[in-house]
Amino acid sequence: MAHRILLMSSSRKDSLGYLEHATEQIHTVLKHEARKIVFVPFAGVALSFDAYEATVKPAFEKLGYALESIHRSANPRQAIERADAIAVGGGNTFALLKRMYEADIADAIRAKVREGTPYVGWSAGSNVACPTIRTTNDMPIVQPPTLRALGLVPFQINPHFISGKPVGHNGESREERIVEFLDINAPEQVLALPEGSALLVEDTHGTVLGERGALHFESKDVVEQVIEGTTFPLARIRGPADFATWPDFRV
Amino acid sequence: MAHRILLMSSSRKDSLGYLEHATEQIHTVLKHEARKIVFVPFAGVALSFDAYEATVKPAFEKLGYALESIHRSANPRQAIERADAIAVGGGNTFALLKRMYEADIADAIRAKVREGTPYVGWSAGSNVACPTIRTTNDMPIVQPPTLRALGLVPFQINPHFISGKPVGHNGESREERIVEFLDINAPEQVLALPEGSALLVEDTHGTVLGERGALHFESKDVVEQVIEGTTFPLARIRGPADFATWPDFRV
Repeated sequence: MAHRILLMSSSRKDSLGYLEHATEQIHTVLKHEARKIVFVPFAGVALSFDAYEATVKPAFEKLGYALESIHRSANPRQAIERADAIAVGGGNTFALLKRMYEADIADAIRAKVREGTPYVGWSAGSNVACPTIRTTNDMPIVQPPTLRALGLVPFQINPHFISGKPVGHNGESREERIVEFLDINAPEQVLALPEGSALLVEDTHGTVLGERGALHFESKDVVEQVIEGTTFPLARIRGPADFATWPDFRV
Repeated sequence: MAHRILLMSSSRKDSLGYLEHATEQIHTVLKHEARKIVFVPFAGVALSFDAYEATVKPAFEKLGYALESIHRSANPRQAIERADAIAVGGGNTFALLKRMYEADIADAIRAKVREGTPYVGWSAGSNVACPTIRTTNDMPIVQPPTLRALGLVPFQINPHFISGKPVGHNGESREERIVEFLDINAPEQVLALPEGSALLVEDTHGTVLGERGALHFESKDVVEQVIEGTTFPLARIRGPADFATWPDFRV
């Protein structure tokens, strides 16, 4: 029962290479132990799962960790059960969640992480670690059976957080989208992670990593800056109270 | 059986006022007839339905059309059945679709529009006129029972289309999101409408309005520019073939 979870905003920061900015963040949760990481590539859409694995594998091997994609396994559920660590990559959150349910691994991941198996997610992989995917930035290109997700952390995260919008554009800014979320789901709150930032979860506490820190959207009118290195009880950020009864349209 | 539908990208173009750019587009579908327009404000989240009506009503009255918001009606279904025209405003597409189903007006709108009652939508109001809301830009802040929508046109539209992404940001650009849609839903296609543009539907044909025209995403590799004034058979843009069997998780 010792949660070890790293939820990163993005696979890239500025013009750095794939996961290049995240070396220390990844070591912090995987602790330099030689682990067999099972990689979930299901958020990948514009590239094949093979190609996705070929991008991620060297990034982890460089850090001393072995990694294999779950799409190579004939029994994905068993692959999760045998994993020393689980990594879930970015891409499209709706595709990721749909395929996770289709492969029937959601419950298995939840159980493993509760037993203490480290979980590393970035972008869509961080979205699905939340109670639901209601704070994803992605286009709903496919329909998962439910927006309910893994619930590894008790509140919603917005990855790839960026302030403002292009000059002259009349679509909503990210802040406006999050305020809409807060408005319709009050009193829920959101933790927004700019690119390069991450949330490290150890048991009941979270720590914000990355020089840009995070933003805690407490309510429509209150946004608190959380600086790098801040540790707080997870219960401090309010999640969905009704998560246990969240509608689940799966048949 | 004479469809008259106007699907606008946005309520605003550049720095113009609410629907100010759309005067001629609106007259084109409402034809200067004095109509009682029923307005659906359900996409509004950060503002009350009263406040939303107070924004939209004067914009239509200025053009000579009476308008009342459906939230004032004790029987929303009956309000739709008695409408001379239906207007559906922008905001959050997921909230709009969820509330449409809750108010039980989706079937009624579909039936009325098929009988020839004009439909005017913008932003989220254009998204819900598609077979599904899979090409919305909005955050899924609430879970509708299904992503299936009104299906007033047979293909998907992306409103508020904008090219590129902020410098240094590693989230997906709009083109990348649409390409992901095309990839996972092949051979479906998408019509993207920049702000200020609209699709006018008259019976079986569509016409692109607005000086910026539209983009027809035919496949991952083929994007065709559609210039202002182009008229084409609706069947030319490929929609979901399986729309009739689209998963519908409503109980």
